Amino acid sequence: MTVHLVGAGPGDPDLLTVRALRLLGLADVVVHDALVDEAVLRLVQPRAHIIDVGKRPGCGVPQIEINDLLVDFGRRYNCVVRLKGGDPYIFGRGGEEAIALTAAGVRCEVVPGVSSALAAPAAAGIPVTHRDVAVAVTVVTGHRRDGASPLDWSALARVGSTIVVLMGVAQRAAIAEGLIRGGLAASTPVAVIETATRRGQRVRRTTIAELASMDMKAPATIVIGAVAAYDLASFPVAGHAETLQPEIGQAEASARS
Amino acid sequence: MTVHLVGAGPGDPDLLTVRALRLLGLADVVVHDALVDEAVLRLVQPRAHIIDVGKRPGCGVPQIEINDLLVDFGRRYNCVVRLKGGDPYIFGRGGEEAIALTAAGVRCEVVPGVSSALAAPAAAGIPVTHRDVAVAVTVVTGHRRDGASPLDWSALARVGSTIVVLMGVAQRAAIAEGLIRGGLAASTPVAVIETATRRGQRVRRTTIAELASMDMKAPATIVIGAVAAYDLASFPVAGHAETLQPEIGQAEASARS
Repeated sequence: MTVHLVGAGPGDPDLLTVRALRLLGLADVVVHDALVDEAVLRLVQPRAHIIDVGKRPGCGVPQIEINDLLVDFGRRYNCVVRLKGGDPYIFGRGGEEAIALTAAGVRCEVVPGVSSALAAPAAAGIPVTHRDVAVAVTVVTGHRRDGASPLDWSALARVGSTIVVLMGVAQRAAIAEGLIRGGLAASTPVAVIETATRRGQRVRRTTIAELASMDMKAPATIVIGAVAAYDLASFPVAGHAETLQPEIGQAEASARS
Repeated sequence: MTVHLVGAGPGDPDLLTVRALRLLGLADVVVHDALVDEAVLRLVQPRAHIIDVGKRPGCGVPQIEINDLLVDFGRRYNCVVRLKGGDPYIFGRGGEEAIALTAAGVRCEVVPGVSSALAAPAAAGIPVTHRDVAVAVTVVTGHRRDGASPLDWSALARVGSTIVVLMGVAQRAAIAEGLIRGGLAASTPVAVIETATRRGQRVRRTTIAELASMDMKAPATIVIGAVAAYDLASFPVAGHAETLQPEIGQAEASARS
């Protein structure tokens, strides 16, 4: 009778936490987002109900209905997994779900995940807080609720932190303009990572001045700052880590047993 | 002949990634920091060399010697794991090690981990980007290199993001002063999480005005902003998740096989 708000990480099942993997093997019901990879869903134990409540442009289940669904499942099943891309408390609306569950008297726990905000840059060989180059990292979302107060991009430009934008594809022109107005040099390096850690991952480099005109498709992570020019050791994308492949079956077996 | 820069997560072995767990089972050598938990080190395969290069106040191995050690091991062993608390690219100096290894011609890969910057708040029930309360989250370190340019705390105060400070225990008075000078209300909530996700985890709440006078000990994560007053669903600290304990042996067995 517990709903587990579980981070699924950036996509590659190897970046699930041990606890997340184990819960997928125990779950009676899994309620997941659009951002959760198929390869992760294949690790769910075969008798579990799997429900997709993913929000996609123009459709998807309203948040209040997701909350109600989780409360209902939490009362009827022993182990409910609410599976979210990345980390449940990083722009995942996990807080809202936790509040709804607690208000309804349903036990609720959180399993932090590897946030795409940090793993997508790593998958591109970018150390977001590289010494002497970045004093901090700020994670923002480009997707704002209607009527929400806008972020002070000018103030952010002055902090000197690396900026990682999630869900920023549609807003990239406004973000670039705000940061340049705030004093960020037009030549500031930018990296765009599409479908990070998954097959089809694509990394491109540009500058803040050119960001608006770059063609890109969601889901993409945008990294802004001097570190975006780095191309160091990266996380090997699925299919390129052959030497470790034979072990994957064992982890799956462990989760399913 | 690969050095893997691996994030060990915030402490609880359940928050290792599947890939990190598997690499601990394959490693010939593990070179770890002071922040890596004993319970994580017990997952290393028994024939591996385990080397502690942890930096502690007043002692520890200089970074250049760690780099040389990794280059040497990377040339001599098949699978070297450089194990770092949290995520290797979040204030972990993973970038510097990647540069040294690549310069020496040693193959190097990164395995992102669950950053303590995000998991410590989750362990305290704090959703760092809770909707309508926080528009962003900024992760900073309180530990600055001698002569490094200081962070513009005033600009950061104006961004309106949640602020998570790692390694900030010694600098907490200066941080609070800078943020208040930048316009942060003296009543802004603050949460301090000591030894997050481990036995002995302690969470305390205060305000930015009172932060300097609060007694605390490292390692601690300091969360500043409206979200710091929240106490929602949290990650259960080791020893409190009895229902899942029997499964842990299987994941270990998988890693060791």
